[in-house]
Amino acid sequence: MRIALDANGGDHAPAAIVDGVVQAAEHWGDTIFILIGHDEKIVPKKLHNLEFRYASEQIEPDDEPVKAVRRKKDSSMVIGCQMLKAGEADAFISAGNTGALMAAGLLYTGRIKGVSRPALAPIFPTIDGRELLVLDVGANPDAKAEHLFQYAGMGSIYAEKVLGCQQPRVGLLNIGTEEGKGSQLTKEAHELISQCNEIHFVGNTEAREVLHGPCDVLVCDGFSGNILLKNAEGVAKAILGRLKQEILSTWYTRFAGWLLRSKLQQFAKEMDYQEHGGAPLLGIAAPIIKAHGSSDGKAIFHAVRQARLFVSRNVVSLIQDQFAK
Amino acid sequence: MRIALDANGGDHAPAAIVDGVVQAAEHWGDTIFILIGHDEKIVPKKLHNLEFRYASEQIEPDDEPVKAVRRKKDSSMVIGCQMLKAGEADAFISAGNTGALMAAGLLYTGRIKGVSRPALAPIFPTIDGRELLVLDVGANPDAKAEHLFQYAGMGSIYAEKVLGCQQPRVGLLNIGTEEGKGSQLTKEAHELISQCNEIHFVGNTEAREVLHGPCDVLVCDGFSGNILLKNAEGVAKAILGRLKQEILSTWYTRFAGWLLRSKLQQFAKEMDYQEHGGAPLLGIAAPIIKAHGSSDGKAIFHAVRQARLFVSRNVVSLIQDQFAK
Repeated sequence: MRIALDANGGDHAPAAIVDGVVQAAEHWGDTIFILIGHDEKIVPKKLHNLEFRYASEQIEPDDEPVKAVRRKKDSSMVIGCQMLKAGEADAFISAGNTGALMAAGLLYTGRIKGVSRPALAPIFPTIDGRELLVLDVGANPDAKAEHLFQYAGMGSIYAEKVLGCQQPRVGLLNIGTEEGKGSQLTKEAHELISQCNEIHFVGNTEAREVLHGPCDVLVCDGFSGNILLKNAEGVAKAILGRLKQEILSTWYTRFAGWLLRSKLQQFAKEMDYQEHGGAPLLGIAAPIIKAHGSSDGKAIFHAVRQARLFVSRNVVSLIQDQFAK
Repeated sequence: MRIALDANGGDHAPAAIVDGVVQAAEHWGDTIFILIGHDEKIVPKKLHNLEFRYASEQIEPDDEPVKAVRRKKDSSMVIGCQMLKAGEADAFISAGNTGALMAAGLLYTGRIKGVSRPALAPIFPTIDGRELLVLDVGANPDAKAEHLFQYAGMGSIYAEKVLGCQQPRVGLLNIGTEEGKGSQLTKEAHELISQCNEIHFVGNTEAREVLHGPCDVLVCDGFSGNILLKNAEGVAKAILGRLKQEILSTWYTRFAGWLLRSKLQQFAKEMDYQEHGGAPLLGIAAPIIKAHGSSDGKAIFHAVRQARLFVSRNVVSLIQDQFAK
């Protein structure tokens, strides 16, 4: 198996990417890693399964996605997707500009036949340490009911094959649990999904329940999904930040923090998205993983773990087969 | 001033409503309170400014809103709205079925002329203890750009007059901060709002920033707003619940919790929506406040404080004047 990685993408690039890929290359000797970047000198040591590929250009976080992908043909992101197309890599990982990665995936590797719109599908850690696949979180902000129906199908396959979830329960993000609640979009999507026997549909799911893992796959339009994801991150960060501030405020609260430290660390570890890998671009005709922009080496390592399953479990072919029906 | 309250609505009705209205009646001797309920015996003591009005029917939390409002004409919710219409009350507060309250408001008191869709506008506490008015959070799940534009105008007036915010900054909930980002709806709304000189528009606001108070009024469609509100409640509750569980797990973490208790209590108090009153139904032709379903006496007391300002600052007339232009 050959996995390509974008050395230029993400807040801590290239150091975090290099750190992650070296960990991965040492861990999985059966896999060849191709790091795509500006300068071969970033690779700290020679490893038999770590290659370097030169890219003269770079897509920036603020670049307009489609324009950047069309113009910067020698960027690491475009090269990665071209390698997928040419069969020179089996999977590609980038922590860079999400829109550009989606655009490059669409332009150079294309969609799976029958899929109307690919989805960005990150994994939410639940409060009891399980994993919830949420899709879409922003690839397609103006989704139609049919798209949500397709997300339910693609998400079920990915959750089963990569997350190891038997008969994944699919929920529909909605503003009320009863059938018939919600917007025009969710009402139509509810009807479509509930008619499909191959999907284990558990109905409407409220945003309040998400962290308690009411389902294994949560289907939503890209706009609401993005609101959900960013809000959850923001609220968690704000509360934990404030807690830290209170702990540091006096000597006796610092002592209390010291007493609580192992419990807090364990909790932080469980809730840390870095442990859960990146977000697959489901519906693209090859395995592409978007790692979080703030990924460190550990997050990249876990994205590689995920990419390996994405490839070895044939998720793209399984989606292809399902959508050919 | 005369304020009517629904004794039947909410998870802790009628006890919490009675508790709150007695506190309010003792605090504001210049205001007459009318409690609408089944049984006069719930009123624990005679107060010169506390009246009781009998209602033979009750709207349940699961009742289909429009049907319930049309059929249960002698319910506390319908009576409260009829009293507004007849001028027998200046404001009405209910912690009951939100959809039914909106339907009763629309049916019996009507919309302000020029307002296309009324909005439910709760107050979010920010992490630094300020207040953010968010509208709409579910009254209108299929909003159009024009509705969002109207929310910006109504929200600005309410934030200035009731929340005491000078020249309120208005943000648009979106999935990216740059202009041109988002869904068709938010792109159109951005254009409409930014063209209006009377609105102090600060542009797109991401869900991640909401708790940090990037604006004073946050405009969104009812579906996304509801996702935002419920998710923020859910995440905060889940994290604080888990923290409590960790604190209670051993004797030394319990001791740590005891050391931290005053800091945690202060923080919980600041983040407690019960302190911030209820959500006005903006755009309805009379002051109606939806108190949170889980309101206790304190929350009802604060909803009364808010209703008094809603009336005395003539918010309905000011919206009327603005929309007549």
